[in-house]
Amino acid sequence: MIHRIDRHATELPPPSDPDPNGAAAVQELMGGKFGEMSTLMTYTFQSFNFRDKQKARPFYDLIANIAAEEYGHIELVAAAINTMLTDPAAAKESFPSDSLNGMDGGANKQHFIAGGRAALPQDSNGKPWNGDYVFSSGDLIEDLTHNFFLETGARQNKLKVYQMTDHPAARALTGYLLVRGGVHQVAYARAVELLTGADLTKLFPSPRIPTDKIPECQPHIERGDHKRIYRFSPEDFKEIVAVFKGPHPETGEELEVVDGPPEGAPPNDLPAQPDVFAPDYAPEEIAQIAQKLREQAGLPDEPLGEVGVPAGGEGMVDKVKDEVKEALPG
Amino acid sequence: MIHRIDRHATELPPPSDPDPNGAAAVQELMGGKFGEMSTLMTYTFQSFNFRDKQKARPFYDLIANIAAEEYGHIELVAAAINTMLTDPAAAKESFPSDSLNGMDGGANKQHFIAGGRAALPQDSNGKPWNGDYVFSSGDLIEDLTHNFFLETGARQNKLKVYQMTDHPAARALTGYLLVRGGVHQVAYARAVELLTGADLTKLFPSPRIPTDKIPECQPHIERGDHKRIYRFSPEDFKEIVAVFKGPHPETGEELEVVDGPPEGAPPNDLPAQPDVFAPDYAPEEIAQIAQKLREQAGLPDEPLGEVGVPAGGEGMVDKVKDEVKEALPG
Amino acid sequence: MIHRIDRHATELPPPSDPDPNGAAAVQELMGGKFGEMSTLMTYTFQSFNFRDKQKARPFYDLIANIAAEEYGHIELVAAAINTMLTDPAAAKESFPSDSLNGMDGGANKQHFIAGGRAALPQDSNGKPWNGDYVFSSGDLIEDLTHNFFLETGARQNKLKVYQMTDHPAARALTGYLLVRGGVHQVAYARAVELLTGADLTKLFPSPRIPTDKIPECQPHIERGDHKRIYRFSPEDFKEIVAVFKGPHPETGEELEVVDGPPEGAPPNDLPAQPDVFAPDYAPEEIAQIAQKLREQAGLPDEPLGEVGVPAGGEGMVDKVKDEVKEALPG
Amino acid sequence: MIHRIDRHATELPPPSDPDPNGAAAVQELMGGKFGEMSTLMTYTFQSFNFRDKQKARPFYDLIANIAAEEYGHIELVAAAINTMLTDPAAAKESFPSDSLNGMDGGANKQHFIAGGRAALPQDSNGKPWNGDYVFSSGDLIEDLTHNFFLETGARQNKLKVYQMTDHPAARALTGYLLVRGGVHQVAYARAVELLTGADLTKLFPSPRIPTDKIPECQPHIERGDHKRIYRFSPEDFKEIVAVFKGPHPETGEELEVVDGPPEGAPPNDLPAQPDVFAPDYAPEEIAQIAQKLREQAGLPDEPLGEVGVPAGGEGMVDKVKDEVKEALPG
Amino acid sequence: MIHRIDRHATELPPPSDPDPNGAAAVQELMGGKFGEMSTLMTYTFQSFNFRDKQKARPFYDLIANIAAEEYGHIELVAAAINTMLTDPAAAKESFPSDSLNGMDGGANKQHFIAGGRAALPQDSNGKPWNGDYVFSSGDLIEDLTHNFFLETGARQNKLKVYQMTDHPAARALTGYLLVRGGVHQVAYARAVELLTGADLTKLFPSPRIPTDKIPECQPHIERGDHKRIYRFSPEDFKEIVAVFKGPHPETGEELEVVDGPPEGAPPNDLPAQPDVFAPDYAPEEIAQIAQKLREQAGLPDEPLGEVGVPAGGEGMVDKVKDEVKEALPG
Amino acid sequence: MIHRIDRHATELPPPSDPDPNGAAAVQELMGGKFGEMSTLMTYTFQSFNFRDKQKARPFYDLIANIAAEEYGHIELVAAAINTMLTDPAAAKESFPSDSLNGMDGGANKQHFIAGGRAALPQDSNGKPWNGDYVFSSGDLIEDLTHNFFLETGARQNKLKVYQMTDHPAARALTGYLLVRGGVHQVAYARAVELLTGADLTKLFPSPRIPTDKIPECQPHIERGDHKRIYRFSPEDFKEIVAVFKGPHPETGEELEVVDGPPEGAPPNDLPAQPDVFAPDYAPEEIAQIAQKLREQAGLPDEPLGEVGVPAGGEGMVDKVKDEVKEALPG
Repeated sequence: MIHRIDRHATELPPPSDPDPNGAAAVQELMGGKFGEMSTLMTYTFQSFNFRDKQKARPFYDLIANIAAEEYGHIELVAAAINTMLTDPAAAKESFPSDSLNGMDGGANKQHFIAGGRAALPQDSNGKPWNGDYVFSSGDLIEDLTHNFFLETGARQNKLKVYQMTDHPAARALTGYLLVRGGVHQVAYARAVELLTGADLTKLFPSPRIPTDKIPECQPHIERGDHKRIYRFSPEDFKEIVAVFKGPHPETGEELEVVDGPPEGAPPNDLPAQPDVFAPDYAPEEIAQIAQKLREQAGLPDEPLGEVGVPAGGEGMVDKVKDEVKEALPG
Repeated sequence: MIHRIDRHATELPPPSDPDPNGAAAVQELMGGKFGEMSTLMTYTFQSFNFRDKQKARPFYDLIANIAAEEYGHIELVAAAINTMLTDPAAAKESFPSDSLNGMDGGANKQHFIAGGRAALPQDSNGKPWNGDYVFSSGDLIEDLTHNFFLETGARQNKLKVYQMTDHPAARALTGYLLVRGGVHQVAYARAVELLTGADLTKLFPSPRIPTDKIPECQPHIERGDHKRIYRFSPEDFKEIVAVFKGPHPETGEELEVVDGPPEGAPPNDLPAQPDVFAPDYAPEEIAQIAQKLREQAGLPDEPLGEVGVPAGGEGMVDKVKDEVKEALPG
Repeated sequence: MIHRIDRHATELPPPSDPDPNGAAAVQELMGGKFGEMSTLMTYTFQSFNFRDKQKARPFYDLIANIAAEEYGHIELVAAAINTMLTDPAAAKESFPSDSLNGMDGGANKQHFIAGGRAALPQDSNGKPWNGDYVFSSGDLIEDLTHNFFLETGARQNKLKVYQMTDHPAARALTGYLLVRGGVHQVAYARAVELLTGADLTKLFPSPRIPTDKIPECQPHIERGDHKRIYRFSPEDFKEIVAVFKGPHPETGEELEVVDGPPEGAPPNDLPAQPDVFAPDYAPEEIAQIAQKLREQAGLPDEPLGEVGVPAGGEGMVDKVKDEVKEALPG
Repeated sequence: MIHRIDRHATELPPPSDPDPNGAAAVQELMGGKFGEMSTLMTYTFQSFNFRDKQKARPFYDLIANIAAEEYGHIELVAAAINTMLTDPAAAKESFPSDSLNGMDGGANKQHFIAGGRAALPQDSNGKPWNGDYVFSSGDLIEDLTHNFFLETGARQNKLKVYQMTDHPAARALTGYLLVRGGVHQVAYARAVELLTGADLTKLFPSPRIPTDKIPECQPHIERGDHKRIYRFSPEDFKEIVAVFKGPHPETGEELEVVDGPPEGAPPNDLPAQPDVFAPDYAPEEIAQIAQKLREQAGLPDEPLGEVGVPAGGEGMVDKVKDEVKEALPG
Repeated sequence: MIHRIDRHATELPPPSDPDPNGAAAVQELMGGKFGEMSTLMTYTFQSFNFRDKQKARPFYDLIANIAAEEYGHIELVAAAINTMLTDPAAAKESFPSDSLNGMDGGANKQHFIAGGRAALPQDSNGKPWNGDYVFSSGDLIEDLTHNFFLETGARQNKLKVYQMTDHPAARALTGYLLVRGGVHQVAYARAVELLTGADLTKLFPSPRIPTDKIPECQPHIERGDHKRIYRFSPEDFKEIVAVFKGPHPETGEELEVVDGPPEGAPPNDLPAQPDVFAPDYAPEEIAQIAQKLREQAGLPDEPLGEVGVPAGGEGMVDKVKDEVKEALPG
Repeated sequence: MIHRIDRHATELPPPSDPDPNGAAAVQELMGGKFGEMSTLMTYTFQSFNFRDKQKARPFYDLIANIAAEEYGHIELVAAAINTMLTDPAAAKESFPSDSLNGMDGGANKQHFIAGGRAALPQDSNGKPWNGDYVFSSGDLIEDLTHNFFLETGARQNKLKVYQMTDHPAARALTGYLLVRGGVHQVAYARAVELLTGADLTKLFPSPRIPTDKIPECQPHIERGDHKRIYRFSPEDFKEIVAVFKGPHPETGEELEVVDGPPEGAPPNDLPAQPDVFAPDYAPEEIAQIAQKLREQAGLPDEPLGEVGVPAGGEGMVDKVKDEVKEALPG
């Protein structure tokens, strides 16, 4: 079972200029062969299918816990795509709207037809993710070797996507994921080494991405997130420490296991997009019903959940855009 | 983000006689169009893609929280399949083994070739789950209407699978899921009713399954799990109470929201299956390495994680089979 | 647009002993690459996409009309599969039923889980039909050449399925389709010949199936159905006669165009199968509601639609089985 | 079986400026999960697989008859796509042509490579339609509930496509389909209500599309097509009247069943596109052969089939464009 | 088994201006239903599955040998795509690069994310090639008839792609393949004629492409490549001569079988593209290691393999572009 | 380009008792994610897409050459499947045959319907191979790392299939492939080591399969095939020696590069199966035509191609079965 925590693993900028072409590219990180759904589901199935786990618990705990982190990654990819698809102007269209007319050729048409300017479980060519991308052989060394390779391919994809769009949300996303993917590579390489003696750390960085030259990676490296496994459980997976330890293969710093998830940030509240009926043609009606239901249930006036940037008005969007421009490179 | 809790939502019996044909049927509940991966990913994407959530939080909280429960359901389906595929005799085979020879025609061959007698993200015909099964339109009423229908189809599938195999693990699984799926139907029907006035509760039970006649459903109904939403989060999704309330459409009992996940049960530790290299041809070598690593890390002799039935020896398997025979109907 | 006529193109025997393994094989004729959905949709799209049709109307009429016949063929394949899946004993099971338990390994599990003992748009390996099987290039000669080849492959498949099961419904189905497929081959060969001079009739029979040695083909050949195109339209497609004419390549008989569809036969009314909820767990409740609605609408006591063998009681099934045994070879 | 009637359910404008990007979007209405192939095939299989139909004939007749109407809808979607892909200038290209060079990035490349500027059974991302989109459980209430939801999703898709292109053919298409899809929703909602008592009509309109604000919907509403089921059969499906009756949920007008199909309109004869060999590189050769064959068969000089706008010359295209501009909004 | 010969079947121009949109279209010739992977794998499987081959060896030899030629065709299609994706400017980018930013909407995004500006086994809509495209029935006449049709469809596709891009590599590729595909059509038509008497040669050219009007076809026709089968084996397939003989159906020239493959040309050495890590972020490091290994192995300073245009510097690219402009039409 | 050599890489036993269930399992080695089509196409595309190859030729030569060997592996897998599907009794059936009736549930139905008792590009669940299984990133180190992992997974699959059937053809096949796959692992591990210093050889054997305990592996190990790369080219790929050298990681023996392919064996001539029309319903007619054509072409009476066991009569089959029983273990 899981507890869900309504926070993002890292902060993303709020919507600015929409970038449907870029959002279509980011889909590879969601539903591509090396996307986050593949890492999430591969490690999840490996943990479900682990046999004789009491006797090999440090390895079970490692895989099961990284699986948990990956859930936060599909969450973050979705948020980045949604941010890139949000059009502040769409809220002001009359009905029927012209806001989708003449959509850029590079866009994923189903972002608008099947979804409400929102993420889909597809790759960058619009092909749905499928279960064939999951690898769970049951052979522990083979699974770990695979996982190391899977993270390698994933990092390659992340860099490519980074280079395909300069939208601030895509850059913030890939900057973060490049760092965290690197940690998972270290973890799996270490596990393979401990089981076989093979020194996979010589392969680092793999691919040979000089992460520290990427501006959006730097804050995460400075914070130490490149050498840290978070333990995503209140009580479980405590035996990770038996595997994830020793020096980081690139920096030599000591690897560390941190109890609990990263602090992260509350998700932004993305504004309604009535032109695609998200959440409705007339979202204020839903808001009224919800408010009445909240009153009947004795809930306070303010919502109990926290968000980062509120859905807000246009003024906010402009302000945010200024801040983003200052805060982000390029 | 999520916290992962290493417990199952309900207790499953340990391995007894293997049932590969039945396990292949249970795959529909994992990777079929109406399987648990579809409910998990549909609600998860709907929660990721929710817009203007502060204004409609009771509905957001409901969807996001049911998504969290579904993670526990794919976990349980996997455990049932793995239990049904486990062959206590397989551990005693010499190399190369004959244990897979002449496998029953109804089996999913990839359970053995791609997996280590273990679950795959496929349906009952061996077709991989794919992202086309996710529905996330962004239109709140449409999404909720869809979810009601999705749970309806899912319950139909569960009953069919119940009838296709009498293996105790499949029966325990479907008995539990039929009850919990019914609760999700109630939740979505109530949400649609509150937003539109349409009285979907007249459709219950849907399909017209008399759940209380199914022996494996009865303990869950007696415990009250048919009228209860668990809140799968330490701090979030508190506004569910504004929607999930009022009388249960079939029994008239008051619906209730419970803080925290169900007590559940620790997962069984399924034994190694060396004939399919799970976790290895010689699992004791892995155990030795793990034990050494545990010592080096200062961990106690006993594993820190809890399991239900331990992987144990053959005697245990026989004993457990006796207990199961007594405890379960049919 | 279409008019739908609630009759089958030929008569099928009623349910006798169920044959799920055979029914799974017959699915190839529904949803395989060379199945009836492929012929239906290929000719339908070719007719939709035909350009400059007034100038080439005899060819347009030919393709559009054969498309119409193919609708009757998917109808017939579905009826045969449903007949083979029907289990008279299933109606008498208590709830929950054991009727699906231990299902033969060769069965398509989704026949029971996704469908109610009923046909699906899949092939004999349970893979869904897909639009890639449609060929519609817009090039008239290429489309016609393709169609000739498509019918060739389809006939090969029909013979193979004939040989894979001796269930009377499968035999009646394939006997009929082998004859009709042969007519379509003649039609397309003739069209190619008239446009290019190439004498495709030398290829007949193709594949070299001696249809007249197959008992279930014989009644259709005797009736003359091997040399006849039916015009499936009240007013349209009258220019077929400009193409479909001359001697039959195998028998030398004159080809003929018949106005209107074949007489065919009313479809059998297959009995309810409550164990798979088709049409319900308690079908009599639906019957009562329907009867009340019929009365309110002033409809007569007897249904206005005609069926062949009524859904009836068990006695009937036995009787029919006797008749079938007498009437059919093997 | 079917009779095919060579008319369209409604009139579409003739080709004007080509819009390949828009045509690619319209494909969602053909081959998407909620496209017309899904409604056609879902209802068709439900009617094939219906059990005990004499006892539940009003419901059988309803489903079987709507299935028949859907055939006319895939026909209309294909015609709109073909119209949008037609390039009057393409006919004048020398060989080899440059007409496809530099094709707009949003286009579906297979519209030109696999097809002859023509419709394909694919969705808006170029993915083929597949049989997984068909739902036919055999459980009558579940099937009807599903159908209501399917039409809901389909209407959402139609509006999105409407907004993605302002090509007159796409607008005329979606205007018509939005109205007819609404009728099917009413029909299925009424059927569910009569079987269960659940008042689904409170959900209307669903999604909350104010159809009467859409100019291209208005003529169909004015004609009464929003409250009318056409009976697409000469003799069958007469018991629909027992279900489709009572007040329209939005307007309160009495629902009505009309014998026979709508008057509709003859399809336009789309001009040859020799640059993509449709129907040939030198279409006049085919025309000559056809004319000779017609003479030999004793057919009159004028084709026996009727078309709307003839394939004609360029002057006609310009003239038609003027008329279209006058007749259509925006 | 095979011997691989590191030469191309014909010469392709070196990289000039990149054309990602055109490269995406050329993918249809690789991984489309009628692409070269389909011809390669269809003939390969037919040769693997051929029964009683000693008694029908001339036909076996024909199919097996054409299969061998097709390997050279997928090689050539890949080379053309890679040439079109190569960007000489990409080598000079700093890290992280902006070279992929704002990529043209018509591009296949996975060309850059999954591949290193390189070919993929996909079609022009980015859909992976799949085994359903292989036809191998075992029935010799049916297989040969199919092959004739497959080549017909393939030629249609090649012309369409020719018309969709004027990049010199695409034009050189399609010019060559149109001629060779025509030879395969002749071969299969002749085989069918010899087995059945059917005169398929009347269908030529099929489609009605006047190949001799296409500038890029002319050199190959002049060389005689339109009437020649190369025997792609040192010792085998010598019985082709019993089938591939007689006059060419279009020109009347005598068909001929040539021992050994065509002379062809050494492949160009496409330059590194460090922005997509092909073969690395810092390719010179790989070059140094390779050079050292070569020395250790006693290999000469110059590589033992031959290439056409060397990967070279920018000056070369410009020079080559000039030559290409002079040498190629349009 | 390639030369094709009509010999198998190793000898397979002739048909004995058919084993359709086993043949279906062996399909995983053809068309599964880790099957030989995946290794063939992955290395082939990597060689096509290799950039700056002159500077990294030892690595290019290694990959291109292993790609060539893989062609021989799909050939061998097909031959094993075909051998297992061959039924000597099928040749004696009258028409229409009952030979396919009641086919074992574990069989792949398309082996008989789509193919003529013959191999298909599918996996063990009947799912077609697809291009998504190809990995070709362009990044040399990443590609090589992937290849090492791919071979690891492939070896795991081979052992599982070995254990699923004891048919002599399957055992001979997997025995050979396990040994050759191990060589490819060594080759890729060595390449990675030379480029990065990472000592992957510590992972051997991977998976931990004690190959020397498998009887069908032993003759190949004794012959030295476990330490040998064959150079599959008359003139090219000579720089492999710069990479494939040093001690074998398991045995310490010196690795060696052999010029030219292994001696192998001529393929058996599998007998006609008229019940599935392979190569025809009446194969003797084809034989007569072929013989006449051979005479006309001046070919000698005996076919020019060599086969192992001739298609022959039944007596031969029995004799061969005896030999096989003696020669093979178990």
